[in-house]
Amino acid sequence: MRIPLSIGAIAGPGITLMAGRSVARGGLTMPEKLQVGIVGASGYGGVQLVRLLLDHPGVEIAFLGAHQNAGTPFGELYPQLAHRIDQVCEAIDIEQIAGRCEVVFLATPNGVAYTLAPPLLERGCRVFDLSADYRFVNLATYQTWYGGERQDTAVAREAVYGLPELYRERLRTARLVGCPGCYPTASLLAAAPLLKQGLIDPRSLIIDAKSGVSGAGRTLKTSSLFAEADSSVAAYNVARHRHIPEIEQICSELAGTEVQVQFTPHLIPMARGMLVTLYAQLRDPGLVSEDMLTIYAAFYRQSPAVQILASGVYPQTKWASGTNTCFIGLEVDPRTERVVVLSAVDNLVKGQSGQAIQAMNLNQGWEEMLGLPAVGFYP
Amino acid sequence: MRIPLSIGAIAGPGITLMAGRSVARGGLTMPEKLQVGIVGASGYGGVQLVRLLLDHPGVEIAFLGAHQNAGTPFGELYPQLAHRIDQVCEAIDIEQIAGRCEVVFLATPNGVAYTLAPPLLERGCRVFDLSADYRFVNLATYQTWYGGERQDTAVAREAVYGLPELYRERLRTARLVGCPGCYPTASLLAAAPLLKQGLIDPRSLIIDAKSGVSGAGRTLKTSSLFAEADSSVAAYNVARHRHIPEIEQICSELAGTEVQVQFTPHLIPMARGMLVTLYAQLRDPGLVSEDMLTIYAAFYRQSPAVQILASGVYPQTKWASGTNTCFIGLEVDPRTERVVVLSAVDNLVKGQSGQAIQAMNLNQGWEEMLGLPAVGFYP
Amino acid sequence: MRIPLSIGAIAGPGITLMAGRSVARGGLTMPEKLQVGIVGASGYGGVQLVRLLLDHPGVEIAFLGAHQNAGTPFGELYPQLAHRIDQVCEAIDIEQIAGRCEVVFLATPNGVAYTLAPPLLERGCRVFDLSADYRFVNLATYQTWYGGERQDTAVAREAVYGLPELYRERLRTARLVGCPGCYPTASLLAAAPLLKQGLIDPRSLIIDAKSGVSGAGRTLKTSSLFAEADSSVAAYNVARHRHIPEIEQICSELAGTEVQVQFTPHLIPMARGMLVTLYAQLRDPGLVSEDMLTIYAAFYRQSPAVQILASGVYPQTKWASGTNTCFIGLEVDPRTERVVVLSAVDNLVKGQSGQAIQAMNLNQGWEEMLGLPAVGFYP
Amino acid sequence: MRIPLSIGAIAGPGITLMAGRSVARGGLTMPEKLQVGIVGASGYGGVQLVRLLLDHPGVEIAFLGAHQNAGTPFGELYPQLAHRIDQVCEAIDIEQIAGRCEVVFLATPNGVAYTLAPPLLERGCRVFDLSADYRFVNLATYQTWYGGERQDTAVAREAVYGLPELYRERLRTARLVGCPGCYPTASLLAAAPLLKQGLIDPRSLIIDAKSGVSGAGRTLKTSSLFAEADSSVAAYNVARHRHIPEIEQICSELAGTEVQVQFTPHLIPMARGMLVTLYAQLRDPGLVSEDMLTIYAAFYRQSPAVQILASGVYPQTKWASGTNTCFIGLEVDPRTERVVVLSAVDNLVKGQSGQAIQAMNLNQGWEEMLGLPAVGFYP
Repeated sequence: MRIPLSIGAIAGPGITLMAGRSVARGGLTMPEKLQVGIVGASGYGGVQLVRLLLDHPGVEIAFLGAHQNAGTPFGELYPQLAHRIDQVCEAIDIEQIAGRCEVVFLATPNGVAYTLAPPLLERGCRVFDLSADYRFVNLATYQTWYGGERQDTAVAREAVYGLPELYRERLRTARLVGCPGCYPTASLLAAAPLLKQGLIDPRSLIIDAKSGVSGAGRTLKTSSLFAEADSSVAAYNVARHRHIPEIEQICSELAGTEVQVQFTPHLIPMARGMLVTLYAQLRDPGLVSEDMLTIYAAFYRQSPAVQILASGVYPQTKWASGTNTCFIGLEVDPRTERVVVLSAVDNLVKGQSGQAIQAMNLNQGWEEMLGLPAVGFYP
Repeated sequence: MRIPLSIGAIAGPGITLMAGRSVARGGLTMPEKLQVGIVGASGYGGVQLVRLLLDHPGVEIAFLGAHQNAGTPFGELYPQLAHRIDQVCEAIDIEQIAGRCEVVFLATPNGVAYTLAPPLLERGCRVFDLSADYRFVNLATYQTWYGGERQDTAVAREAVYGLPELYRERLRTARLVGCPGCYPTASLLAAAPLLKQGLIDPRSLIIDAKSGVSGAGRTLKTSSLFAEADSSVAAYNVARHRHIPEIEQICSELAGTEVQVQFTPHLIPMARGMLVTLYAQLRDPGLVSEDMLTIYAAFYRQSPAVQILASGVYPQTKWASGTNTCFIGLEVDPRTERVVVLSAVDNLVKGQSGQAIQAMNLNQGWEEMLGLPAVGFYP
Repeated sequence: MRIPLSIGAIAGPGITLMAGRSVARGGLTMPEKLQVGIVGASGYGGVQLVRLLLDHPGVEIAFLGAHQNAGTPFGELYPQLAHRIDQVCEAIDIEQIAGRCEVVFLATPNGVAYTLAPPLLERGCRVFDLSADYRFVNLATYQTWYGGERQDTAVAREAVYGLPELYRERLRTARLVGCPGCYPTASLLAAAPLLKQGLIDPRSLIIDAKSGVSGAGRTLKTSSLFAEADSSVAAYNVARHRHIPEIEQICSELAGTEVQVQFTPHLIPMARGMLVTLYAQLRDPGLVSEDMLTIYAAFYRQSPAVQILASGVYPQTKWASGTNTCFIGLEVDPRTERVVVLSAVDNLVKGQSGQAIQAMNLNQGWEEMLGLPAVGFYP
Repeated sequence: MRIPLSIGAIAGPGITLMAGRSVARGGLTMPEKLQVGIVGASGYGGVQLVRLLLDHPGVEIAFLGAHQNAGTPFGELYPQLAHRIDQVCEAIDIEQIAGRCEVVFLATPNGVAYTLAPPLLERGCRVFDLSADYRFVNLATYQTWYGGERQDTAVAREAVYGLPELYRERLRTARLVGCPGCYPTASLLAAAPLLKQGLIDPRSLIIDAKSGVSGAGRTLKTSSLFAEADSSVAAYNVARHRHIPEIEQICSELAGTEVQVQFTPHLIPMARGMLVTLYAQLRDPGLVSEDMLTIYAAFYRQSPAVQILASGVYPQTKWASGTNTCFIGLEVDPRTERVVVLSAVDNLVKGQSGQAIQAMNLNQGWEEMLGLPAVGFYP
């Protein structure tokens, strides 16, 4: 009982034209829709990609890789999708993937992507990695925080950091994209205008982050059990979370000077969503909230995925749930001469899979938010 | 900072054609898109309609009625929608509504619709009422359970019960539709094949329903407070819920004999979703689960909004969250000669606003699920 | 920084007297307080026992057995208890346990207790088993549902079913108690008056149970993850849950005839608590709710752990949270000639550890609710 | 069906002696137990007081004031307590209260206590106010943030700030106590050692607070609805919360210099609990976490209600749920030369009613934690 996708139903010459498929790709004759593959399809990142790409007007899923579930129909892993997808999970095979896919999303654990990306690039695929493997300019930093032996220096140097709001132009032509996760996304979108415009003391950045439990993935650990996480809030990895070096790398690049952040992640009793509360000391205490909001609105005026809220309005993570939108609100405190910025995202969409698709859209010359929900359901 | 809707971006002659706008409507020259109005836009039902209709390729919102919030921009009531809609809530004015809208959705409290529908119908509008006002064939029953003085017998007699899976044909031509709410929807979709095929004892029906708290709407009541409803489950209105007569009316029509149901609603600590657990005594103890699943699949083969699960799979309400899909699983218990049917819906979509839009789609000659999400996000 | 227990502070000759320690136990000179051991202390059942026994005026914890955590201070497993307990988890050693403890609580997985109970009984301990091992009169039934090879027929025959409200007298002298879990407890307390008084058709019993996620224990499984269980409700093991034979065994004993129940467990997004909604066909349709409430109140007048609610009041599981109280409300439906009974317990207290302590209190000749909370916190 | 309180059962001369009732109170003949009154008993603060005082061995509830519910049995407002209390709510009448009570708890909205406390004090009662009315040394500050016309300067000057860990000695003899709420309690207990010992820059304090929804009380507001607060987190009153001046007043007193705090409250989808994450710049970057933990342990060695966690352990609010304990963990970040302190309390116990009882215990010369739970249930 497969239903025709409403959006599928209206796909036609019009849409493919709009979807810019006339753009030559190496002069090859192209299939009607972009053929994409997902490796690591059975985790939360993977199922988000499947869900979003099924409704994406420009693509077709050509490969579903799920190491441990090879041979299992995807609809058995996620029965709620059984009526929309009849593909079967496959083992990871570079030739198979490269033979069928023009674009590959890697939703694999840290340390896997750098074994898959090089051969895939060689075979002409474009690669969007959702893990930490290609987020670091300096592989030594990667190895300090994630371990492993990296030989792929050249490949890593080519990777573009997949945050469209900051690297839009480079993403249009990238072959390899290292997509940031939820903490860096929410933190960097909140901090970027401040650092880029030199509005704050770069050593005063404090980021207090609140994450939904799905951020820990579908892996089995006691702290992710409902009975442990429900009706409770707690911090973890205080002053030692792996996302600190990644956030500092991009912040420093934005500021043009070394930036140090105090980062504290907290687990919140909700499945989805992330809120970042950012504190920073203003260089010019004269600025008021309205000025700052204008600066933010200008900074993100080309960015459909970022919505700046009205003065006095602060984001609720629920507003972003299921969407690729980041909501930002802020308050300048004249008393303390600090700015407090609040940014909310869905940790699994704008904070993960949606962001990778947004980068792919740019990379394909398509409209940035194509196929990505901008409005969540509420309540 | 308004973003072009990806789906809007691909709307064009193709889509309007597909959307069957060539269907003559009184020979009038029609605007490109169907002009719809929403009365009662500020409640949960209303904001769902706004959200879904904003992404619907065939319609345009021409009127937003919100009694208490007249004059307030909708984006102030729901800041998460501010970047998608700049309309202002208006006071209820029949001439204004009828002048601008071809279709009107009434998301008003019980007892309001029957004062608005008659004049709107007179002025040529099609009316989809989400309240209880037009769900009863017999107005005496309505008055017993909801009170009020009804003079609109003729109009009420014309109303079609807005459950597409049971009244598809009549909905294609209806001028007035009384859309069922979440409890009747989940209950009737679970019971229909059993009653229609005479598979059960019509007096043995027990419906144990579990509802998310949003079912109580946005009205302020102590029982809807987070601190009261969280981490707790309780029954309410045992043996006296207002939806009992409505469920029995349709069940009796399906069975061709008077059906009596035992209905117990429960409040579950979740915002969205509804699960119905239905128990009934089988007439033929020989039937096994697989037979029954085949019967259900056949019964709903024309119904894109209903998904029958595989044997041994039972629905989670989360699967339906944000979608217009009803998931149904079941088990025949040979020991007790009963069937246990489980049906899950999103109480605010398939259980309310999405269902009204599904009825409108049919009524417009469009694809039944046009503009309605079929896949929820997970987790 | 250990704080004197307020209740400890008021312990003295008075209390030990009251606690009936004058009761001879083999003429031995006894320590001031009853020495108890807990085997399987690191799971949810175990930590509940530790928490409750720490505040119990009559006992002292003499042994903490935790197989996998032997050698670890209990306060490291549960830091919130570190200021109250400095004992270290030990490996299971029959001689050690019997040498130090007069009473032993077994909070081990099914299939372990029947290897530990016999040797402990031989050595003079009284044993309270929280698993399924000693709940069945007929070991064949146990083996059908739980597997394993049982040789301990004689021992099993001696075991008393640990539901104080039904087996109070036998528990006063029992050496071995098989304590029921949450589903049977909530179900049997709701059904007992109906069956004992022959008020219902014994084949019409339908039990729709709603359980908090902690009922699945601290074991790691995907369905217990926060992101899976949150904001969702679903049924599981429909018509095949292991507690069915146990519930039917006691129901049949109460009714004096074979009783068959339709039992459907559901997982609710809350950590603690259980609600049972019971449906049954009345033999005498003349009974009204008030009569039935009087019958229940009389049936439980000697039972401090059961509270019958006023007419029209239905229990919220939150009321029972953290307590050893079972709240019961009901409604007789004259239309359908059925009774709907609602019973709420804390699945980990009255549904597990608190119940075992209540049985121990009776067994020691103490006040039944000694050391057991009767009032939960709210909200 | 009233059950004898296990603790009641063991009350006797011993306990009253222990409870220090020999302390002369104006040479009057005293009743066996301290007679206490609660004004504002129907709100969350009130019901917590009732629950805790019912189990308190030294007191007896002599008056239950509930303005809007005068005449209603308390057990009707909270059916889960019906088996434990048969008192009826009464209208507020100074003579009635003073005639029956030696100690009065005021759980009334801000602005009410200062009309009740003066006449009650005149009549010899001791008053514990849970509102903001008596927390300020300077009434002008109160009026700036809370409005109203205060004439009771002398009375206000006499009030003692009810945080036992900081004002233990003064509380022993106080006649009027202004008990702090959850935000100041969690914040001040986290900050006190740092400020008292001059370990941090007094202008660098940033307090990021996370509160359960019950903190908003039982008042009906949209933001407190389950469907709004569930599965979401958001900040509110950024840089303008009423608790800022109160926190700064005590911090300044501790530091002996003017302290300014950046305070951001957040609403977390849980009913109970509060976590404060405090950030401050260290004066001596040489300090390591272990040193700091030693300093905290020493600072609170006389404080049974504060538990300092081991190095690397951070509190979960669930650990404190239902208890009067504050759990504190911390981390010194040598990279940023900041200390991050985490403190968790139950917002309605240590953050409200339990704290008032703790102050009463001290005031009565009783053991500080008498009748107050030190161990929460888990999970």
